Amino acid sequence: MQKQIGERTLLFPNMPYVIGSANIVAKAESDGPFGTCFDTAVEDDTFGEDSFEKAECHMFEQAVKDACRSGGLAHKDLQAMLGGDLLNQIITANYAARDLQIPFLGLYGACSTMSESLLLGSILVDGSYRAPVACVACSHFSTAERQYRYPLEMGTTSPPTAQRTVTGAGCVILSDRWQNGARYRHIRIPSATIGKVIDYGIDDISNMGAAMAPAACDTILQHFRDTGRNASDYDRIVTGDLGSFGTDMLLRLCREKQIPIDDCHFDCGKEIYTTSQKYNCGGSGCGCSAVVLTGHLLPHLESGEWKRILFLATGALMSTTSNQQGETIPGIAHAVVFEHFKAGEQ
Amino acid sequence: MQKQIGERTLLFPNMPYVIGSANIVAKAESDGPFGTCFDTAVEDDTFGEDSFEKAECHMFEQAVKDACRSGGLAHKDLQAMLGGDLLNQIITANYAARDLQIPFLGLYGACSTMSESLLLGSILVDGSYRAPVACVACSHFSTAERQYRYPLEMGTTSPPTAQRTVTGAGCVILSDRWQNGARYRHIRIPSATIGKVIDYGIDDISNMGAAMAPAACDTILQHFRDTGRNASDYDRIVTGDLGSFGTDMLLRLCREKQIPIDDCHFDCGKEIYTTSQKYNCGGSGCGCSAVVLTGHLLPHLESGEWKRILFLATGALMSTTSNQQGETIPGIAHAVVFEHFKAGEQ
Repeated sequence: MQKQIGERTLLFPNMPYVIGSANIVAKAESDGPFGTCFDTAVEDDTFGEDSFEKAECHMFEQAVKDACRSGGLAHKDLQAMLGGDLLNQIITANYAARDLQIPFLGLYGACSTMSESLLLGSILVDGSYRAPVACVACSHFSTAERQYRYPLEMGTTSPPTAQRTVTGAGCVILSDRWQNGARYRHIRIPSATIGKVIDYGIDDISNMGAAMAPAACDTILQHFRDTGRNASDYDRIVTGDLGSFGTDMLLRLCREKQIPIDDCHFDCGKEIYTTSQKYNCGGSGCGCSAVVLTGHLLPHLESGEWKRILFLATGALMSTTSNQQGETIPGIAHAVVFEHFKAGEQ
Repeated sequence: MQKQIGERTLLFPNMPYVIGSANIVAKAESDGPFGTCFDTAVEDDTFGEDSFEKAECHMFEQAVKDACRSGGLAHKDLQAMLGGDLLNQIITANYAARDLQIPFLGLYGACSTMSESLLLGSILVDGSYRAPVACVACSHFSTAERQYRYPLEMGTTSPPTAQRTVTGAGCVILSDRWQNGARYRHIRIPSATIGKVIDYGIDDISNMGAAMAPAACDTILQHFRDTGRNASDYDRIVTGDLGSFGTDMLLRLCREKQIPIDDCHFDCGKEIYTTSQKYNCGGSGCGCSAVVLTGHLLPHLESGEWKRILFLATGALMSTTSNQQGETIPGIAHAVVFEHFKAGEQ
């Protein structure tokens, strides 16, 4: 069975089954257009913990447990967990993995983590190495602000290109079979495309969308070349958190490359807040695409309204140190295909 | 073909081929017992760059290019690169991936990164998803000191349990076939065991060995249970960077669990420096196990002196933030089996 095609695309002949998912968000996200789609929305973004870092860890754990339950499993049934977050040394994911006691593979792909975890999780399941597995990503506005930008207490204002880090965790359970009582019975993953690190020389940490758009364009282009498909083969081509400015840039780049995606493009970051919430260019953070995937995209696939989507979480690769040293901010985007299948269909 | 066994072990029926490797170290490492084994040793640990961070990135890139050459390939032939480092947001690996332009999957497993990358790289190759692939880990004394501890200029002294972060990068090339002109023709990877995050409540950031030893013990025990093997099946059971104190703790823990490994245990961190170098408990950092694997262990397997080793890079999972917030330091260890094969043997 062929398992690779073109330069960077992997085929999954056993097509891993999406059986469960869950997400948890805070108030800003539940006030947005997808507010009613999220599984859990809390008013208090400390989740009762004594630091925002512990709150983020709490969210991560709850998303995994809830996703297992929605897939008809207990979290102890998981054979592996793949995931990460934005904090230094991915402490959120590491401490959650300690508490959950699931075999753990830590990833860092900045905001591309959700598609990286789905890509690697699909390989584990498709190749019969381990199943079921959990793919997880998580971010928190308050931990990200103080690590990457300024203390919240300073009350700094942000420039028009800035995006707000989503407080949210999302988890998808992949398995090698349908599960009785599971939330989903119609979604599978037939292929994925690995991203490359692309740098257009952006060095403005308040303009992450521009840093990530070229990487998204590169992976979409490569995915089309590898598979012989184009935008019309997808109901939606979804990017993680380019925001409004980055979205404009991506659409322009794709037109320049003769692969227009205007008709089917959807950016989770651009859509997660309403304009009346005044979060400038939209949402960001690896939780952004994770909660929109699990809250908004998967239900549309499950119902059959959409037959096939291309999901690209997009990451801006930098640290405060690299930025202070004058380095530019490259981006990366991995792509994962989700398809609707009729029950029993192979 | 069976590809999983027991609770956490993966079997690789196609047994990925180790075809190339390379490493690069600085003066402290080349002054140690394995000084003559390393491929490249430099006097100037800035590598001619204007920051230690850029120097680390330079090392990472050079290790990948040299490893490809030793495997009879150009780095453009690589189908994927899996790796990471210790810096916030793994900037070393990300910027190296930008410059190398190889499809990239970023990992964070602290000092367990080398075995995590080998485990996931083996899956990509064994499952026919992508080959050849590069598995890489890298650390630098000066970048780690200033990020995790104190500015070098302070000249702080370190407690007896402390270890010195190795300045070094190591890369292993895995493929789905032997390669003409490649450095290795006798080493393959038949299986691996995923680690769990284990916490014994250690909270002393100068005693990482103690934080990691319980995780190493847990993975060794699970590997033995899953495979029905014991220490006598291995010429060496190798841990990454427990150092002398952590090694004592691991040996004691293994004896307590009735799986004594005293006769075949080898710790890269404990052995990389001589006692006359006075680096307290030895070396650490994810480069430590990566350079000892590529400089010392693989040649012994290639020659047939050793038939089978279990390689466990060991990671301490914490950040300066988590430590300041009073969190303990859990550990993780993934295990990878390397075996000697006669040429042509299946």
